[in-house]
Amino acid sequence: MKIVKTIPRLRQLVAAQRIKGRGIGLVPTMGALHQGHLSLIRLAKRTSEFVVVSIFVNPAQFGPKEDLKKYPRELQRDAALCSTAGADLIFAPRVQDVYPDDYRTYVTVERLTDGLCGASRPGHFRGVATVVSKLFNMVRPDVAVFGQKDAQQAAVIRQMARDLDFPVKFVVGPIVREKDGLAMSSRNAYLTPAERAQAPALYHALNLAKWLARSGRREAGMVKREMTKMLAREAPLGEVDYIGIVDNRTLEPVKKITGDTLVALAVRFSSARLIDNIII
Amino acid sequence: MKIVKTIPRLRQLVAAQRIKGRGIGLVPTMGALHQGHLSLIRLAKRTSEFVVVSIFVNPAQFGPKEDLKKYPRELQRDAALCSTAGADLIFAPRVQDVYPDDYRTYVTVERLTDGLCGASRPGHFRGVATVVSKLFNMVRPDVAVFGQKDAQQAAVIRQMARDLDFPVKFVVGPIVREKDGLAMSSRNAYLTPAERAQAPALYHALNLAKWLARSGRREAGMVKREMTKMLAREAPLGEVDYIGIVDNRTLEPVKKITGDTLVALAVRFSSARLIDNIII
Repeated sequence: MKIVKTIPRLRQLVAAQRIKGRGIGLVPTMGALHQGHLSLIRLAKRTSEFVVVSIFVNPAQFGPKEDLKKYPRELQRDAALCSTAGADLIFAPRVQDVYPDDYRTYVTVERLTDGLCGASRPGHFRGVATVVSKLFNMVRPDVAVFGQKDAQQAAVIRQMARDLDFPVKFVVGPIVREKDGLAMSSRNAYLTPAERAQAPALYHALNLAKWLARSGRREAGMVKREMTKMLAREAPLGEVDYIGIVDNRTLEPVKKITGDTLVALAVRFSSARLIDNIII
Repeated sequence: MKIVKTIPRLRQLVAAQRIKGRGIGLVPTMGALHQGHLSLIRLAKRTSEFVVVSIFVNPAQFGPKEDLKKYPRELQRDAALCSTAGADLIFAPRVQDVYPDDYRTYVTVERLTDGLCGASRPGHFRGVATVVSKLFNMVRPDVAVFGQKDAQQAAVIRQMARDLDFPVKFVVGPIVREKDGLAMSSRNAYLTPAERAQAPALYHALNLAKWLARSGRREAGMVKREMTKMLAREAPLGEVDYIGIVDNRTLEPVKKITGDTLVALAVRFSSARLIDNIII
């Protein structure tokens, strides 16, 4: 497995694989890899003979008060993990090569980015859609794999890839959880021990929503109130940023939980904002 | 030469050429072709064995009060012209295939789009950058050819293609003029005979700027004043929309005409807004 830092070298190595007829898979990441990422690499490997993992902490998707500086960067550890999961190439470009000084171009996806995390993180999805467009053009993958953990990101990228006619097959891998139900996230490492003990409350609240909906109590307002109560009880160290009950494709709020409804939430702890979701 | 209306058929025919090792050229147009367009097709043919001409009147680049409805559409005539110029394929998609009902994604290029035509036509260059991104992904050309007549468009697309890492070689073809100096444009057909007689004033004003600069009178404010006077004298039926003296790469206004300065102007007649430019 090679680690490549420049765009021309990346293009050269990928082109050499493409010319041999090998399918190209791409798993975009910001590094600080965990089992969730590795499951996406394994998923990519099932459909693509040559899997590129990009590791790039993308400044364009961080707000001015967010954790860009402290976001964990540990390329050698990440590379070892990628290798065990079957990645063929790691692409870890420098910031100045991705965004040169006179950089000017942004990709925006309207509507889908207004609610949920988009409301709390203005500009975040513009940064995501922009860097993924760039990675699609650098790697030209046949298949790109994203995680359901970032449900809104997956919806935004699916829309962007379709709207801009990228000839890329879009695959979403399921959320990978710790034994106690906490969704794996690079930001879990920021939690204090007391917060870590309370963090599974996010998953419990999502399961409560599922249980309520399955037992016929489908009214979104009521479900949100019950989830809020459970979070207050189980995770008093956290502050609910949002609970969204939305159509899984359009991300528009729904009044009742019916087929293909996304229930998503974000909770702020002292130095980590955690998100999780479930499709009902 | 084939005329293709659907994206899958386009991809199929282009892929068949690519697999034979043929270089793919793209000339994006809105149809209503004239000798200017044909010169771009011939230019594309010099570097690419297989030249695609797209003909698409792009709603996203027209303002609400602009001439989208009346813009000339004459596919059979355009096809015949393309064929004589050496085009291999015409791609003429339907609006609903390019922008389906739930379309949401736009490409914006900051700064470069603030002045000149961008100031008079808000959203215009967003529409241009978006449709060209889409065409790049549909056709995946090796080379794309644009006209210097739309100087700001060329600068915006050059920046967009570089910023989003499209692996497309960017070529700009020179302005083609009528015998009296009027830059060829599909919108010249909207001019009344009296306006048509005055329209070469745009070119005369640009030549005045060149002559002033060459004779050492390089101060932009003075040059603009002299150009304005000439336009008032030679084209009283027109109203100056802007005269811009800018850096040819950044499109930022300059105070003095030095190397690689773009002098651009737009003049409104009763039912046509004409643009022209010169690089000094």
